Amino acid sequence: MDTRTAPARLRIARLRETLADQQLHAVLVPSADPHLSEYLPAHWQGREWFSGFTGSMGTLVVTATKAAVFADSRYWVQAEAELAGSGIELVKIPTGAATHHLDWIAAEVPAGAALGVDGQVLGLAAAKQLAEVCQRAGIVLKTQSDPLAAAWPERASLPAAAIYDHKAPHAPLGRPAKLAAVRAAMARHGASHHFVSTVDDIAWITNLRGADVDYNPVFLAHLLISQTDAVLFVGAGKVPAALAATLAADGILLADYAHAAAGLAALPPQATLLIDPRRVTLGLREAAAPGVSMIEAINPSTLAKSRKTAEEAAFVREAMAQDGAAMCHFYAWFEAAQARGERITEITIDEKLSAERAKRPGFVGLSFPTIAGFNANGALPHYRATAQSHAVIEGNGLLLIDSGGQYLGGTTDITRVWPVGTISDEHRHDFTLVLKGTLQLSRARFPTGTLSPALDALARAPLWAESMEYGHGTGHGVGYFLNVHEGPQSISKAIPDANMAMQPGMITSIEPGLYKPGRHGVRIENLVLNVAAPASEFGEFLEFETLTLCPIDTRCLDMALMRADEIDWLNRYHAIVRERLAPLVDGAGLTWLMTRTEPIPTP
Amino acid sequence: MDTRTAPARLRIARLRETLADQQLHAVLVPSADPHLSEYLPAHWQGREWFSGFTGSMGTLVVTATKAAVFADSRYWVQAEAELAGSGIELVKIPTGAATHHLDWIAAEVPAGAALGVDGQVLGLAAAKQLAEVCQRAGIVLKTQSDPLAAAWPERASLPAAAIYDHKAPHAPLGRPAKLAAVRAAMARHGASHHFVSTVDDIAWITNLRGADVDYNPVFLAHLLISQTDAVLFVGAGKVPAALAATLAADGILLADYAHAAAGLAALPPQATLLIDPRRVTLGLREAAAPGVSMIEAINPSTLAKSRKTAEEAAFVREAMAQDGAAMCHFYAWFEAAQARGERITEITIDEKLSAERAKRPGFVGLSFPTIAGFNANGALPHYRATAQSHAVIEGNGLLLIDSGGQYLGGTTDITRVWPVGTISDEHRHDFTLVLKGTLQLSRARFPTGTLSPALDALARAPLWAESMEYGHGTGHGVGYFLNVHEGPQSISKAIPDANMAMQPGMITSIEPGLYKPGRHGVRIENLVLNVAAPASEFGEFLEFETLTLCPIDTRCLDMALMRADEIDWLNRYHAIVRERLAPLVDGAGLTWLMTRTEPIPTP
Repeated sequence: MDTRTAPARLRIARLRETLADQQLHAVLVPSADPHLSEYLPAHWQGREWFSGFTGSMGTLVVTATKAAVFADSRYWVQAEAELAGSGIELVKIPTGAATHHLDWIAAEVPAGAALGVDGQVLGLAAAKQLAEVCQRAGIVLKTQSDPLAAAWPERASLPAAAIYDHKAPHAPLGRPAKLAAVRAAMARHGASHHFVSTVDDIAWITNLRGADVDYNPVFLAHLLISQTDAVLFVGAGKVPAALAATLAADGILLADYAHAAAGLAALPPQATLLIDPRRVTLGLREAAAPGVSMIEAINPSTLAKSRKTAEEAAFVREAMAQDGAAMCHFYAWFEAAQARGERITEITIDEKLSAERAKRPGFVGLSFPTIAGFNANGALPHYRATAQSHAVIEGNGLLLIDSGGQYLGGTTDITRVWPVGTISDEHRHDFTLVLKGTLQLSRARFPTGTLSPALDALARAPLWAESMEYGHGTGHGVGYFLNVHEGPQSISKAIPDANMAMQPGMITSIEPGLYKPGRHGVRIENLVLNVAAPASEFGEFLEFETLTLCPIDTRCLDMALMRADEIDWLNRYHAIVRERLAPLVDGAGLTWLMTRTEPIPTP
Repeated sequence: MDTRTAPARLRIARLRETLADQQLHAVLVPSADPHLSEYLPAHWQGREWFSGFTGSMGTLVVTATKAAVFADSRYWVQAEAELAGSGIELVKIPTGAATHHLDWIAAEVPAGAALGVDGQVLGLAAAKQLAEVCQRAGIVLKTQSDPLAAAWPERASLPAAAIYDHKAPHAPLGRPAKLAAVRAAMARHGASHHFVSTVDDIAWITNLRGADVDYNPVFLAHLLISQTDAVLFVGAGKVPAALAATLAADGILLADYAHAAAGLAALPPQATLLIDPRRVTLGLREAAAPGVSMIEAINPSTLAKSRKTAEEAAFVREAMAQDGAAMCHFYAWFEAAQARGERITEITIDEKLSAERAKRPGFVGLSFPTIAGFNANGALPHYRATAQSHAVIEGNGLLLIDSGGQYLGGTTDITRVWPVGTISDEHRHDFTLVLKGTLQLSRARFPTGTLSPALDALARAPLWAESMEYGHGTGHGVGYFLNVHEGPQSISKAIPDANMAMQPGMITSIEPGLYKPGRHGVRIENLVLNVAAPASEFGEFLEFETLTLCPIDTRCLDMALMRADEIDWLNRYHAIVRERLAPLVDGAGLTWLMTRTEPIPTP
């Protein structure tokens, strides 16, 4: 038997065999790595490997007799298909909630039995919750070793991509200035040291980029900062010698990736360590020298990097224009190829669109896997076409394309929906309701400091008015040539905290949607920048500058639903798109741009 | 010196003298009683008595050298005036936040020193926060006695109003059915016993009402429920003998109010006690017998009573009509008296409006102190005119009246704004923006289970669009012939929890506002009922039935801001108001109703 293709049923059985050896009754496999990243190196994709569920988020729990995957509504259809026949139960959880597996564990693991989880990949906040549940249920929690190791000989090694310098002008703020800002925040907290595990925070502080995971230009590392030194724990040989010298000159020394725990263990006992409980794992937290005081607070860099500087915002506007220009050339090709009767599949779209982006100055790579979903596939919010399973674009319906790029001057993320053949009144109706949601939120003004989840209802209201809803958040924060999903802000049903307050310079997506399983999906997504609105006796206010530059297809509109002020907004947006993109496109791309940005008449 | 009129400065000095005797460095005086009620009997109004600040909410902390009152934006103007010259600092806190005094205590009380607070009036959740802060700061927390007692010989005794039966048909559900529902919830939690301190919960479970505090028809009591018995701890002599017999027949026995702690101390050690950490005080929690297991969850009655039955909703509609009829007669008098040139003050308004309500069948009393604020006084959201300080209604401007009644079949709460003399474009503009907020939320549909704070932005958006904002919540839950402020739902910036989910039958206020200090205030408030909207493949949905019946003065509208669909809503609302109230009013009241419900033309 080739274990590489063994189905989940066999892998789970093999895992169960090793449980007994470890004196475990059950094992918890989160979708997590020591950096609590969204995209995991293959080395830590144990949940996918053992369960066969390939979604980007989900939790696996395996006991001696049962196994369950916990996934939110974005993944239900996909997970049901992938888990079919595996013997693994799919537990459907709401988006944003992450505690259902805890109740399941409490119910399924007998008191006195042991649950194993790798403490090295268990976030502190999650560990605290888990420990409480286990204590109440009398379950013995074992976090000192990786319970998967023995059952997973095929496990991938750690990624080793080279690390490079994100230089000025695209990185307007130098490493010394960023370290100084972090140290000022440490001083405010009364911390002598600060330990950072999150790879986007480390990339931001160090102005370094890498390619250790797909789509996010990050590298695996930990960073230990004192008021005088900074030590970057990173795989040997990944930093070229010249860059290492530059870093040293900027006050950043290198140490081996595997020595991060040792670095924490070597802290002086009078040290006061600032760590972010949502962004450090239990394993590393426990590595700190005894006696070290802990201060728990959000990483200062997480807040700082969410507020893009004016220079960064200017580069983002450039990246958006290049991205929009790529879209023009892609769609011009798409419409022409359709008219010629060429066979186009969801895979072709990904290839052609990526190729257009690749021609653009500053382009580095995609910011996430392209979602090109036609009709029923568009109704799967996180669908990804594969060589084995994808649709041909033929007949009538809606084509949803969600894609984005990494540029030296920013990160893009855009969703548009296009009509194919003849579309129905229902298509137009659904498209227009979603657009009204995008517009209502895009046009909002709100007090500076508003907790971002409080804005969520503004995008949903037009859909709610017709008893419709979508199962994902409305908007996520976006990094600067960094992760396409970067908080702390989130326009969603998340329970807010003070760190989610809207501040000037934040970039967030606005992407309401509507999904009719088996039929079609609509999502219209722009990125927006928080900019100052006129202040008043009531305080400071923010509004959104729409950064994304690409036509919204007016052929999909149900004009009976559009108010004059909404049409006016759309026409003004299209005038801006035309003005900004026209200098960057030519030939068929330019013709397409002019056609698709034609103003529509106000009734 | 008459200590009853001694200013705050002297009272604080006297309190400081007693601190030394008690070996305390500081004392915390919350606005709280053993029932964690909103309206406090005078016996527990220590914060007001010592500080002189008469607002309904606020926290006083006094140390050996400093004193501070913590109050939210509703009270800033009032508190500044009342605290002037007292030597007490006003600390302005955001609405809904209640932890600023903790930071202040941590900063002002030296490590090793003691802070005193009466554990009998300290909520469990607040006690936990306070204990954590004190532990971190090295402060000794003393909760075993009341630190105010020695410094407050003039303290009022406990209220002793008679308790009466809230009978069918107005109480459609009998005591045994309500006790059975609570016991079913106890069983789901695995609780053998349940202890309730909140007076609105107790009134609801027992179908009893009283008059121990102003405005809320409740009585001081605690209730201890087992699966077989229920003991009501209540002041001797407050329950008439015949009613006591009825209660006994329904399974509710009486014990003395002072014996609640003893009742908890007498629980069998194997008991499992369900308590609501937000609705039980530390003092009573600590009274429970050692060994008793605690289950912390929201009181089942708090959830149950928030969902009004169809029978209750029908009675509420009747009460709303009676309340609206009283408003018609009041306003007819007001306009005629104004036309005659009579001298009308904010006090006259309260008297006349209360007198009109008193004529209505089922009326029991006011549900809160009438707020009648003309111009600058209307800009104080919680203003109350007094005999010493009130405005005469003369000249030009806006008159804001926020008032409500307790009826056997429901509780009302309504705010309207009326033009006096000639009003300005700014008056119209502000009135119309607030109305647009009221309408946008009133017309919303949303998924059943939406966390109520998520709806807050819908009412604020029209004001935000012009960089305007209000400093209070948008809506509070309302009881059924009970407290005018009753959760768990809250349309506000509150951090949501699962108990705040919108469910059918809940009654909530919608009351956005706009306050321009020194000039004028606008607030337009209706009560709304959660009713089922059409369900769909996306789930169950709710929408609001507007319960409040009273014209919204169209003379205050800036028609340039009104959309056709908003005018249409207003005209339909006024048609309903006219239809429902016309049979209940006559003479000048009827004429006034017909005039003020005239449809306005759609542009």
